[in-house]
Amino acid sequence: MDDVRVSVQELEALSRDALRKAGLPEAHADAATDVLVTADLFGISTHGTRRLGPYIRRIQQGLMNPTPDIVVTRKAPSLATVAGDNGMGPVVGAEGLRVAIALAQETGIGYVGCSGSNHFGAIAPYALTACEQGLISVIGTNAFPTMAPWGGREVKVGNNPLGVGVPRRQPPHFILDIAMSVAARGKMRAAHERGETIPAGWALDAQGRPTVDPLEALKGFVLPIGGHKGYGLALAIDVLAGVLTGAAYGPGVGSLFQNMREPQRIGHFFLVIDPKRFMDDATYHERLEDLFRQIKDTEPFDEQSPVMLPGEPEWLEREKRLKEGIPMPRDIYDMLVQLAAGRFDGPISAY
Amino acid sequence: MDDVRVSVQELEALSRDALRKAGLPEAHADAATDVLVTADLFGISTHGTRRLGPYIRRIQQGLMNPTPDIVVTRKAPSLATVAGDNGMGPVVGAEGLRVAIALAQETGIGYVGCSGSNHFGAIAPYALTACEQGLISVIGTNAFPTMAPWGGREVKVGNNPLGVGVPRRQPPHFILDIAMSVAARGKMRAAHERGETIPAGWALDAQGRPTVDPLEALKGFVLPIGGHKGYGLALAIDVLAGVLTGAAYGPGVGSLFQNMREPQRIGHFFLVIDPKRFMDDATYHERLEDLFRQIKDTEPFDEQSPVMLPGEPEWLEREKRLKEGIPMPRDIYDMLVQLAAGRFDGPISAY
Repeated sequence: MDDVRVSVQELEALSRDALRKAGLPEAHADAATDVLVTADLFGISTHGTRRLGPYIRRIQQGLMNPTPDIVVTRKAPSLATVAGDNGMGPVVGAEGLRVAIALAQETGIGYVGCSGSNHFGAIAPYALTACEQGLISVIGTNAFPTMAPWGGREVKVGNNPLGVGVPRRQPPHFILDIAMSVAARGKMRAAHERGETIPAGWALDAQGRPTVDPLEALKGFVLPIGGHKGYGLALAIDVLAGVLTGAAYGPGVGSLFQNMREPQRIGHFFLVIDPKRFMDDATYHERLEDLFRQIKDTEPFDEQSPVMLPGEPEWLEREKRLKEGIPMPRDIYDMLVQLAAGRFDGPISAY
Repeated sequence: MDDVRVSVQELEALSRDALRKAGLPEAHADAATDVLVTADLFGISTHGTRRLGPYIRRIQQGLMNPTPDIVVTRKAPSLATVAGDNGMGPVVGAEGLRVAIALAQETGIGYVGCSGSNHFGAIAPYALTACEQGLISVIGTNAFPTMAPWGGREVKVGNNPLGVGVPRRQPPHFILDIAMSVAARGKMRAAHERGETIPAGWALDAQGRPTVDPLEALKGFVLPIGGHKGYGLALAIDVLAGVLTGAAYGPGVGSLFQNMREPQRIGHFFLVIDPKRFMDDATYHERLEDLFRQIKDTEPFDEQSPVMLPGEPEWLEREKRLKEGIPMPRDIYDMLVQLAAGRFDGPISAY
């Protein structure tokens, strides 16, 4: 299918209109649009505006609350919880981040646990917002189970993404945004759509055999990074984002796509740290740039592929897309135009 | 070489005596002994009392301070720094943890950055201490560089371990303790000592070629978990443990073994969270055990290898070793006896 190129302004307008027509208040539509369009700009298109299809479908079916009464409870000087009232993930996530940033600005550190949320998109947009305030962030969420516990043959653990943002004086900021699986299910879906195989080491099939068939992989087991290490990290993130917040956890976390009977009940956590509490701004940036310079000066195996920092490729993509527009399959674009017109009965092209 | 079995009481006495004779105050010798002997009990022998050899050698050579004046600075209600004054790693680490625990008990969350430290052993013993206080911990340290930045052919990044402890009502607690490399250099050294090869995927040789020769691997590149993901995590941990604390970072972090000219200047961070600030104790434990029960109930691929939680194998090993003693190569045991007698001029068998 041929691609169209959409300007960031048009994409923002489409997203805002769609969300307003789906019943979100203006401020929530704006916050969610910022998260989704930033993912599109970063090239994380699987977590961008195309997700408006399944998000709005869940709102239409009464599985997600377009007008949540989000409750912030400050537990201690640097600690708060955010009860999302089954709001849209990027809305609840943006509120969690806002509170964590406010706590960090006031007390040097803020930790916020969010419950009653839904799929909140990519982590990178939240990390970018914290970076733009000069703040370090560590962000995690649980997710619908796609992995088996290490050594097991039943899917019980999400790929539970973790992100870290580190502000630099000038962008590109250091932005790490990784799932605990070797490769995202979205990449397997994309390979399937393109009729391609996937690399060995990404997944096992339903019988526990290694597979390069993306469809068999999607029916089977996504492998965790570092084997038992990624399994342990995913479980630790589930404790912080799920068990401790009051959200669902493990097999109890709902799917954005598959379970159309009940809310996802996803949880997140946001840890935000103000580096200026540790040292003056000039010293922090001098030390950080000294480290990054040494890393980037590393001789590469391939002279055409210089060593980069996490977030750099996405920032380059963002600059390109700001100028040239965001490439998008036509059926996704058509869906967004329909949604922005308030027509919610068309086909959902979300992947 | 044949093994001896040493009781935990004897090992503790040997460690305390060695550290006292090396000039440590009694409280510091006790704190470090607890960290090192717990690692031995967990079966993490590469990070146990055998490290007393290289630790004391560094003290003897004036590279590590046996009587540090550790300075704790409270920056905010939930934030502190610990300047280690080039003290022994487990001494500075134990102090960092103590402060983070105190902050968490007072304010629900504590974050401590440690500078001026040295190799602090395994993370699991610190996580266990927090678990025994009913507290969740996230702990990281930077380390002497052993990995190349992703795509690069120069060693510039440590395997920068990360740990997470989650307290259960009864042990085994959830204790994750992982380096960002696929496999630890210690395992490659052990394979080399046994004359064995290492699995493919662990390392590249100095020319960037995959190798199964442990000696070539030790001269080359340890691979990060999940490729660019583990590289990004290692770098993020270095920012938190190194850049932000005032410690060394990246290629500036010294080696415990190789550089006998200057201090290691290692940094750590300790994040401690009190789950009781989020929900009552009964609810927390009910939710946690509900998750863990579902995980452990997973059907395994191999009926002989049931699915376990992080920390479970080490806890089983601990129970065994408490009863049967700690197995140890004779040359290591002989070294410990010598050190405990205050004889510091013998051979150092540390690996």
